[in-house]
Amino acid sequence: MTAPTRRGLASLTDRPGGRRLLYGADYNPEQWSRATWREDAALMRDAHVSLVTVGVFSWSVLQPAEDAWDLDWLDEVMDLLHEHDVAVDLATPSASPPPWLAALHPETSAVDARGVRMSVGSRNHFCPSAPAYRAAALRVATTLVDRYAGHPALAMWHVGNEFGQECFCDLCAAQLRRWLSARYGDVDALNDAWGTAFWSQRYRTFDEVVPPRAAPYLHNPAQLLDWRRFTSDQLLALYREQAAVLRAGSDAPVTTNAMGFFGGVDQHSWAADLDVVSDDHYGDPQDPTSPARAALTHDLTRGVAGGAPWLLMEQAAGAVNWRPHNVPKTTAQMLQDSLRAVAHGADGVCYFQWRQSAAGAESFHSALLPHAGPDTHLHRAVRDQGRVLALLGDLVGTRVPARAALVFDWPALWAGGLPARPSDRLDVVAQLEAYHRPLWRAGVATDVVPSDADLDAYDLVVVPALPLVADRAAAAIAHVPRRGGVLLVGPFSGVQDPTTRVRTGPFPGPWTDVLGVAGEEWRPLPDAGVALRSATYGDHRAHVWSERLEARDAQVLATYDGADLAGAPAVTRRVLPGGGQAWYVSTLPDPAVLDRVVLDCAAAAGVHGPLPLVPDGVEVAQRGDLVLLLNHAGDERAVELAPGARDLLGVPVRDGVLRLPSGGAAVVAGVASAPPG
Amino acid sequence: MTAPTRRGLASLTDRPGGRRLLYGADYNPEQWSRATWREDAALMRDAHVSLVTVGVFSWSVLQPAEDAWDLDWLDEVMDLLHEHDVAVDLATPSASPPPWLAALHPETSAVDARGVRMSVGSRNHFCPSAPAYRAAALRVATTLVDRYAGHPALAMWHVGNEFGQECFCDLCAAQLRRWLSARYGDVDALNDAWGTAFWSQRYRTFDEVVPPRAAPYLHNPAQLLDWRRFTSDQLLALYREQAAVLRAGSDAPVTTNAMGFFGGVDQHSWAADLDVVSDDHYGDPQDPTSPARAALTHDLTRGVAGGAPWLLMEQAAGAVNWRPHNVPKTTAQMLQDSLRAVAHGADGVCYFQWRQSAAGAESFHSALLPHAGPDTHLHRAVRDQGRVLALLGDLVGTRVPARAALVFDWPALWAGGLPARPSDRLDVVAQLEAYHRPLWRAGVATDVVPSDADLDAYDLVVVPALPLVADRAAAAIAHVPRRGGVLLVGPFSGVQDPTTRVRTGPFPGPWTDVLGVAGEEWRPLPDAGVALRSATYGDHRAHVWSERLEARDAQVLATYDGADLAGAPAVTRRVLPGGGQAWYVSTLPDPAVLDRVVLDCAAAAGVHGPLPLVPDGVEVAQRGDLVLLLNHAGDERAVELAPGARDLLGVPVRDGVLRLPSGGAAVVAGVASAPPG
Amino acid sequence: MTAPTRRGLASLTDRPGGRRLLYGADYNPEQWSRATWREDAALMRDAHVSLVTVGVFSWSVLQPAEDAWDLDWLDEVMDLLHEHDVAVDLATPSASPPPWLAALHPETSAVDARGVRMSVGSRNHFCPSAPAYRAAALRVATTLVDRYAGHPALAMWHVGNEFGQECFCDLCAAQLRRWLSARYGDVDALNDAWGTAFWSQRYRTFDEVVPPRAAPYLHNPAQLLDWRRFTSDQLLALYREQAAVLRAGSDAPVTTNAMGFFGGVDQHSWAADLDVVSDDHYGDPQDPTSPARAALTHDLTRGVAGGAPWLLMEQAAGAVNWRPHNVPKTTAQMLQDSLRAVAHGADGVCYFQWRQSAAGAESFHSALLPHAGPDTHLHRAVRDQGRVLALLGDLVGTRVPARAALVFDWPALWAGGLPARPSDRLDVVAQLEAYHRPLWRAGVATDVVPSDADLDAYDLVVVPALPLVADRAAAAIAHVPRRGGVLLVGPFSGVQDPTTRVRTGPFPGPWTDVLGVAGEEWRPLPDAGVALRSATYGDHRAHVWSERLEARDAQVLATYDGADLAGAPAVTRRVLPGGGQAWYVSTLPDPAVLDRVVLDCAAAAGVHGPLPLVPDGVEVAQRGDLVLLLNHAGDERAVELAPGARDLLGVPVRDGVLRLPSGGAAVVAGVASAPPG
Repeated sequence: MTAPTRRGLASLTDRPGGRRLLYGADYNPEQWSRATWREDAALMRDAHVSLVTVGVFSWSVLQPAEDAWDLDWLDEVMDLLHEHDVAVDLATPSASPPPWLAALHPETSAVDARGVRMSVGSRNHFCPSAPAYRAAALRVATTLVDRYAGHPALAMWHVGNEFGQECFCDLCAAQLRRWLSARYGDVDALNDAWGTAFWSQRYRTFDEVVPPRAAPYLHNPAQLLDWRRFTSDQLLALYREQAAVLRAGSDAPVTTNAMGFFGGVDQHSWAADLDVVSDDHYGDPQDPTSPARAALTHDLTRGVAGGAPWLLMEQAAGAVNWRPHNVPKTTAQMLQDSLRAVAHGADGVCYFQWRQSAAGAESFHSALLPHAGPDTHLHRAVRDQGRVLALLGDLVGTRVPARAALVFDWPALWAGGLPARPSDRLDVVAQLEAYHRPLWRAGVATDVVPSDADLDAYDLVVVPALPLVADRAAAAIAHVPRRGGVLLVGPFSGVQDPTTRVRTGPFPGPWTDVLGVAGEEWRPLPDAGVALRSATYGDHRAHVWSERLEARDAQVLATYDGADLAGAPAVTRRVLPGGGQAWYVSTLPDPAVLDRVVLDCAAAAGVHGPLPLVPDGVEVAQRGDLVLLLNHAGDERAVELAPGARDLLGVPVRDGVLRLPSGGAAVVAGVASAPPG
Repeated sequence: MTAPTRRGLASLTDRPGGRRLLYGADYNPEQWSRATWREDAALMRDAHVSLVTVGVFSWSVLQPAEDAWDLDWLDEVMDLLHEHDVAVDLATPSASPPPWLAALHPETSAVDARGVRMSVGSRNHFCPSAPAYRAAALRVATTLVDRYAGHPALAMWHVGNEFGQECFCDLCAAQLRRWLSARYGDVDALNDAWGTAFWSQRYRTFDEVVPPRAAPYLHNPAQLLDWRRFTSDQLLALYREQAAVLRAGSDAPVTTNAMGFFGGVDQHSWAADLDVVSDDHYGDPQDPTSPARAALTHDLTRGVAGGAPWLLMEQAAGAVNWRPHNVPKTTAQMLQDSLRAVAHGADGVCYFQWRQSAAGAESFHSALLPHAGPDTHLHRAVRDQGRVLALLGDLVGTRVPARAALVFDWPALWAGGLPARPSDRLDVVAQLEAYHRPLWRAGVATDVVPSDADLDAYDLVVVPALPLVADRAAAAIAHVPRRGGVLLVGPFSGVQDPTTRVRTGPFPGPWTDVLGVAGEEWRPLPDAGVALRSATYGDHRAHVWSERLEARDAQVLATYDGADLAGAPAVTRRVLPGGGQAWYVSTLPDPAVLDRVVLDCAAAAGVHGPLPLVPDGVEVAQRGDLVLLLNHAGDERAVELAPGARDLLGVPVRDGVLRLPSGGAAVVAGVASAPPG
Repeated sequence: MTAPTRRGLASLTDRPGGRRLLYGADYNPEQWSRATWREDAALMRDAHVSLVTVGVFSWSVLQPAEDAWDLDWLDEVMDLLHEHDVAVDLATPSASPPPWLAALHPETSAVDARGVRMSVGSRNHFCPSAPAYRAAALRVATTLVDRYAGHPALAMWHVGNEFGQECFCDLCAAQLRRWLSARYGDVDALNDAWGTAFWSQRYRTFDEVVPPRAAPYLHNPAQLLDWRRFTSDQLLALYREQAAVLRAGSDAPVTTNAMGFFGGVDQHSWAADLDVVSDDHYGDPQDPTSPARAALTHDLTRGVAGGAPWLLMEQAAGAVNWRPHNVPKTTAQMLQDSLRAVAHGADGVCYFQWRQSAAGAESFHSALLPHAGPDTHLHRAVRDQGRVLALLGDLVGTRVPARAALVFDWPALWAGGLPARPSDRLDVVAQLEAYHRPLWRAGVATDVVPSDADLDAYDLVVVPALPLVADRAAAAIAHVPRRGGVLLVGPFSGVQDPTTRVRTGPFPGPWTDVLGVAGEEWRPLPDAGVALRSATYGDHRAHVWSERLEARDAQVLATYDGADLAGAPAVTRRVLPGGGQAWYVSTLPDPAVLDRVVLDCAAAAGVHGPLPLVPDGVEVAQRGDLVLLLNHAGDERAVELAPGARDLLGVPVRDGVLRLPSGGAAVVAGVASAPPG
């Protein structure tokens, strides 16, 4: 018996008549009548919807009791969708087990860090370690693959939903001990890695270790970090168990939906198990930084996919309902958000959900088909968007031509979020945003990659915030300027090894040589910040953080002017003999200054965006040989393009100038060449 | 055997020598010596105190052990009070069971949503479902009625105190299931009502349902709403059980004290079981909106009483002690607060408490007799107030001539407070206040009534915020303009049916026809709000909320000027063929503008206050044929009255003009006629 | 058998070659290799380190399993330190029991007020009542004293660490009942003291009493206060048990480290059991009030020591890591902080910790030897400080010449922090700071003493905030002006007796006669505060608090100008026939005015600092016959001294003027005479 050939996103996008970007939504037919199903299918076709995710929360309907099954309705829905040319991403419903399971097996419900067992009546209450839960989840997955592997609508499998649960119960404690035993071999290795000599925490046996349950003061940080690793691995085991069953019976690709920078799972460690990388993204429409954050997150997701196309599995058409105050998107924002995802590598954009629920906890979450029905401003825009996406089939399968990389991974994120650090104002993701924004604004294609990624393809490597990094990864990063590239490192990076142990000696330990600097003290700043003096960037203020630093073999581009650090280096650059450059920024400079630092690094690396001049307020991004333009400004913007440029969406280009209205979008051909590979 | 004739508040106010407004306080003699009792009784008589509530927290003294009783002290107190012409509102002490009960029956203590059982040493720790608690509470009630039903001081029964507890224990879970079974009949009806098809929450049997205990994410909103209903009903059953015992042995009226808009119980569903409607009200003296809020709350309480007189059971003479910072009332505020309650329908004003405690958790709560004793500024004002109230016997039993109604009920309040709504800044009570304030300022008598009230008596009906409403009630509201009245509806009303299910199609579903508008999208606003254009009201800004709306058959009085809604209707008015009017306000306009909208509606309905001109800072209200005036301004205000007007409290009226000093109060005869009925 | 002679701090400071101030840190060798120990010992000697605390968190290393011991490493460390002339303060490791103890005896882990048992993996998780914990703690203490009593490095014993834990488990409940039974004799006395007649809390037997566990509303305040007393006593019993074992086998002094105003233990009730009084102090370097707060706290610690020298056991060399944002000290602040402690009576200054941890929860807490090693800015300053301290041996054993006292004790602190008070903005410690600051600024030596202290030595006695005070102590305070001294009393003092019972009648009850005032109402102020009129101090605003007061036999120095209190006294002074004075401040005046009031009282008492003129920004304090000067200003300050004055630290004094640079410190001889005694 040979394993079936595993297929990816191309199996959904590549159609006999040509390639198509996927467009769709979660669809929850169990909430509606048969008549509504028919209306839905017809409206989907009208809106060019090509993919719906079905069954994410259907367990209690599919299996209303331990030995009762009701799948006929799903047969009918699958048939109906197929008739309307809508493919199905069929979910295993394991994210929300039915009440009967909790009633029969109370241990299948999770327990929090204070010992409280979660009740039914919400969702995501399962304990990932409970054998009864795992058996039940496998049983329903098996039932689905047995019945639908061969259905013509079946295009993809979707395991669970937004993994990220934590459970502190005794079953999980036992699993944790097994995991630790496998990781460390013997308990002395654990004691050493966790530094249990401090605070009298030395363990005699693995049996004495518990999850980081409620405690009177700070937990051991290495314990907390391993807890995060264990939680991610434990959920991955749960995913793998179901994926194995699906793959044994079907050759459709298997996916699950991640949540960007959410800390619940280490996406990089999951990547090998995903046939399609999917992400859910819910930016706040009221927040002007949401577009930049979205672009960064998409660059992360593309990195998880190894640069291959990925799928935006969930977003909101209008408002969400889980913020305290939920300002909706405009329909212009709705389209811009989708096109941004495509420009950053998505081969499909989907939503939560197709038809807005009338009942349940998400009835005030927007959907593609609002309560008020199809004859509405929103749904007309949904149909328009379907038409727009249909014009962009040429993008399918193409790559983003990134020669710049930002380094980020979950162990660093987790370490940066541990308690009792020098400052909780120094935030890993906020630093990542600060260094990504100038590149995004300039339209520079940038990959977000983990610290152990292969960096050879990048001329510019930026390490905004990597407080924790392994020696080997650190060495690979240090190699970048040595082979002629440009390396830019932000403050408080390289500080800890993978066990959270601080590297003693001058910092940033693994990079003092290549950067030519030696630090000895982190000095969080008073609220007023500190003055920086710089001939290059002008005098300005920096905030939150400073470091006592010596420039041993580096040019000093800015110095501190504070009483205690007066004249000491703040920003440095070392030009290596081979022409490579190594920059260090030891503080949080004024954002405008940081933007210039980053762009100077990009220029030194010869990295630039697809257009020489982009007007203020216009977002630009290249994918394949096409260039996306989004006007965020309050009025029209004129964008100078090359002669012969044209917009695939129909905005006329006159004399090489495209006049983009406020809120408008264009996808321009003829100004860029496709990246190699 | 015939049931004894049940009597109401008149049995307390109507005396052989004429009617009297009740005046008094909680009295806790178990905290004091016999000598102090004698001093108290004499001081009460001096202060014209006519009613005290005794025994609210006396259980552990009355019944010091399971089979030990000590009632002699209470005999003596009752006799003493009677000698001093002070009537007694005798309480069942069920709000705070004694420690021995918790020690004998741990299950009588409540459990919170996280499974923690409440300890003794505070109060209100009982589980309303525990049989041992209920039996013990009935036993003490029986003992009291057996002993005091015939006592000449006994004037009223007071069951428990400020009902509103929640308990999530297994006994309550069993009761919840019984309640749900009675409400829904079979579990499929519950599944349908709760929309359990969403998030895989379908229940196989009622046995699987639990209270909304700790869960990892949002609870099912219908479950939360039914939990509120159940909690109110469960407490009502507890009240009824005791009331039945009291009524079986006594014909004195039975009451308990509610807490205004507090969400713990649905007062409207309790009303039929109350012989006297009582309310506790503790406004913050530092908050300038407290008078308006008090008036609104009194209008609510009067509505619960069906327009009949009610009793202000508790208020503070000076400061409370449960806010973080407790600014006291001035003595002028003390009198104004009492007179406001009377003007809004109270036939008595009482306080917590008579003598300020020297020990216990409320020793820093003010009282009528402060720690410093009777020869104090405060206690002199208390005696003055007794004299003032004694002048107002003519008001007893009279009605408030309301032709305007605000619609409010608890299911709507509860629905408006559920999580995961479009915006938690749209607050049901705050909206109620916004629409009530201009009517209150103008002295327009206004009833606050539930959505299923008989609205025929009202020329103006205002629905500020009724997110949840039943079809039948909605139809009755829609009838108001059809019979020639004026209806004014605020945003996000009529959205949900009683199960929290959203009405699909254009909104506000039940009223689109009568209002002549059709909405399709709720759009919470960015913090900056939105500009409104209005020829009628002038251009101004609105905040928090907007709606995408079409005026199908209505005049547009204001339009939005935001990018996404430019030119769309914000405020509309439909004049019906019969002259009735139907107004819709889809946003939160500038308060000054909303005031004008509400007063325009009042004018259209021919509804107005008792005086044509009221100076700024003077509060006015009519009850019977008397008009109350309160000067909140920092200096004297001249109020123009009709010739022949006179103030019962002694402020001289010269040439029809009453000069009211800052902080002063007047009760004017001769400017208004009594309402019918 | 005779008890060994107990020795104090002098046994550490008085050396054959003369006296020395102690200098050192916690030292945790179990975190490091043998090679590092040798480097540490050499560096300690270089830095003039004379004392290290060893073993605070060594339990799990010393006793890796119930019947396994490993003390050889400690032998070696003790020997090595002795070779380098570093004395050892050897700790019992009871603050953090090893995981195996929790595994064997789960009941040794504490339970919080909500019933959650604390997990291992942090520290301080022990239940102070668990017999298994106490036996294990005694066993390890016995092992240590048996082995090290005679070691030449052993200089002091250190029991546990920063006592202050709470545990609400059933074992603690049983201990609480025993404690209450001992305190009250019979349950009726408890009922009376706790005022259980309120809210039906009367207990039938002690068995019904529980710790103040989770409750639905306010706890009984007397119960809360007794819980604090019990907790402190229970921890004291734990301390005593170990101290007894240590003393039985060793004549070295016994100490433990307190935490200033921290509410966990009543230091005054512990004082008799401490051979050396030690304190940990971690001011926030970013907070400009930190120096004043530090001086106040040191004055408190000296008061606990009865005026004798004490030991600053822990402080930070740079930053801590437990605030959200940890700004470090400058090295100038580091030295100033140490010298301040010495000037306020410390005979030694120590740090947490010697070598910065590379692992564990405090790896980002600064230390004397940072991660970056000895060749650093910080460590050079550490060595400099060692040299400076070595110059100040003459201070050892000298007293602070205090003729002013501030009255403070823990029962008052606890009472002031109970819930449901008139205002939580009236803070006991903040009031203490407000009255201490002007004295500190003027260099007036001030003791902080408990209310039952002997006050005879003081010419000025200040009672800033003593809401709870016993009759006897109140009488002693009232005696101060009667014997010719000056008494200054702040608002809301003398209100409650030791059971929290409010004294009825005019306030401040015990002092109305001596102050010549009678109060009847506390009136927390609206946010805007209130105007005060004063011919003496000028018109100004007061905040937070006012009182309705009558001046019966006192001069009125300021009056209220608020609507409700217009013209009533705010600040009063009574000059007694014998010349003594009694001042009362009933509000929180503008700080500049309060400063003047306090200094007027000091002048009336003839109390002043050591220098007639101190420039702004310069802190001054006298100890023995030496005067400390610290310049907090941003530039140099000239200080006029007496002719012949000289600075022991080397700042030249020219023509009687010392020019102190910004951040500088001086210790001046020749300007003051030593206090008697």
